Amino acid sequence: MSNTKAYAALNAKDPLAPFQFDRRDVRPGDVQVEILYCGVCHSDIHQVRDEWDESIYPMVPGHEIVGRVSKVGNNVKKFKVGDLAGVGVMVDSCRTCKNCKKEMEQYCVDGMTGTYNAYERDGVTVAQGGYSSMIVTDERYVYHISEKLDLAGVAPLLCAGITTYSPLRYAGVTSGMKVGVVGLGGLGHMGVKFAVSFGAEVTLISTSPSKQKDAERLGAHKFLLSTDEKQMKDADSSFDVILNTISANHNYKKYLDLLDLNGKMLVVGLPSEHPKTSPFALIKNRRSITGSMIGGTKETQEMLDYCAEKNIVADVEVIPIQQINEAYERMIKNDVRYRFVIDMKTL
Amino acid sequence: MSNTKAYAALNAKDPLAPFQFDRRDVRPGDVQVEILYCGVCHSDIHQVRDEWDESIYPMVPGHEIVGRVSKVGNNVKKFKVGDLAGVGVMVDSCRTCKNCKKEMEQYCVDGMTGTYNAYERDGVTVAQGGYSSMIVTDERYVYHISEKLDLAGVAPLLCAGITTYSPLRYAGVTSGMKVGVVGLGGLGHMGVKFAVSFGAEVTLISTSPSKQKDAERLGAHKFLLSTDEKQMKDADSSFDVILNTISANHNYKKYLDLLDLNGKMLVVGLPSEHPKTSPFALIKNRRSITGSMIGGTKETQEMLDYCAEKNIVADVEVIPIQQINEAYERMIKNDVRYRFVIDMKTL
Repeated sequence: MSNTKAYAALNAKDPLAPFQFDRRDVRPGDVQVEILYCGVCHSDIHQVRDEWDESIYPMVPGHEIVGRVSKVGNNVKKFKVGDLAGVGVMVDSCRTCKNCKKEMEQYCVDGMTGTYNAYERDGVTVAQGGYSSMIVTDERYVYHISEKLDLAGVAPLLCAGITTYSPLRYAGVTSGMKVGVVGLGGLGHMGVKFAVSFGAEVTLISTSPSKQKDAERLGAHKFLLSTDEKQMKDADSSFDVILNTISANHNYKKYLDLLDLNGKMLVVGLPSEHPKTSPFALIKNRRSITGSMIGGTKETQEMLDYCAEKNIVADVEVIPIQQINEAYERMIKNDVRYRFVIDMKTL
Repeated sequence: MSNTKAYAALNAKDPLAPFQFDRRDVRPGDVQVEILYCGVCHSDIHQVRDEWDESIYPMVPGHEIVGRVSKVGNNVKKFKVGDLAGVGVMVDSCRTCKNCKKEMEQYCVDGMTGTYNAYERDGVTVAQGGYSSMIVTDERYVYHISEKLDLAGVAPLLCAGITTYSPLRYAGVTSGMKVGVVGLGGLGHMGVKFAVSFGAEVTLISTSPSKQKDAERLGAHKFLLSTDEKQMKDADSSFDVILNTISANHNYKKYLDLLDLNGKMLVVGLPSEHPKTSPFALIKNRRSITGSMIGGTKETQEMLDYCAEKNIVADVEVIPIQQINEAYERMIKNDVRYRFVIDMKTL
């Protein structure tokens, strides 16, 4: 067992605080990664504060992890000591069900094992995340990271990146398509970058006029102010795909109305209340709402390779671990452009 | 102008009553059809009673029309006097927009013209439906009907038939797929027949155990009692496609939970309140909700030809027009198996 330094939530109320725990020694298939950067995802806050129920404490959050391999098990084939490596939202799955066999382990029939706030497959050991000095993970769930990219900017690709890349690919976004991205946060800013890189005409849809300039800087071609009824009406039935990243409570109808024939609204935000939706808005233009959850191991590696090729990383604000509680407060106020990433050498 | 006998609603409150009005003379592209049978759709009741707002009175309902051609305009190519013919939910559209050009006129950018409770393209003339002795319609929106099938059973194909055929085709339902049909009414019983004929393993999903026997008679392979929590839990993540025909208010989550990886819930019912849906249920298994509205002219003819080939008609209870108000009351109590069809010679 290896003693590991970390920051943890001890309960749903108190701030995160320094914490120590034991990581397992590497098993034959494991890769041990010294963590260099860990992104801060809004779902970290939801889980730390027990907003999705059944949180497990102490909890070391963090599932946007990049670092360097420091040890490998005897059977490891993909990695050697010194390689850059990433770990994302899942660290295990049953590996035998029909979905795991398709390398879509995020939809494992038995349920994937989350990187933290989850039990390992033994049903007893608590998985702990990336706000820590080191992580030990089976190589299937570890990804190669290019040396070419800014490492702090790579970290958020492991969650925000794959969460937006996967549904845009599934919807077949390509050159000539009109894509709207609703919300310019951690997910939305990656959605804009990917949709632009796939050749689509991209419109950022936001309640905040102040986001227009940033949207353009990120590559968006147009801006739609969703509080302006005339703009929204003029944009009725004009999009092929809408990536909806909103996690605040809302009615889906407002964005469904923007979809053209066979248009698809891709849902990746997780509002706490069940959103309402208009059946009339659905049957008009034969519109769809499609959910999507991160990506499988194969597609996550594909996305990371694509980002290396296209020079795509997240826009980040790097913080020392000691500022994590302040960062949470700023995230709740949407005061981050567009992802906090913890520099783990400050631990 | 031709004086036409009919039954009409004069307002939202009173029973339907005998009524007379003038149909236009045939224009060069028109077909005049002497109506033999007209199906009674639940949307007739919604519109007669002004439950969808902005109803136009007097209103002659009816959009499941079959009859025989009695006159054709000079430019008509598809029909001659004496042919069987059908008219469905739409009688016109702009004919020039991108969707009309694809023969998906139901999604006309300017809005299709409904068969009744709608204004013709001139914006003034009120379109009147099939609870009448005769209808005059441009041939583009008139369909060939096989002489082989029971005509009363054909009438509901023009709405209930195409409304279920089109989304099942769009979802690619084929041999080996697992399809659930929620609700066994006018739409649901056609959904079962089509899904079975496409080779799927079909499960009827209903709150009513009494529907099991009928479901089997209609060809369903399995029955799932949606009020039985254990049965529902056992069926979690097991369907490729669910055709949701429910028009009562409900939460979509219950049926989304039944969908396997990439599963699609096809929504054709129109509850008056916006249904809620769980984003967690959507992102699990990358599920979709897809709306669908009738079908275009090309697909409607394709469906009618398919039904002739496969000997598919609706299960109907034929009534004289004088029983229409009683039929509405019985429909509201789900007391019809599965569609009332008016014998128009009783007019």
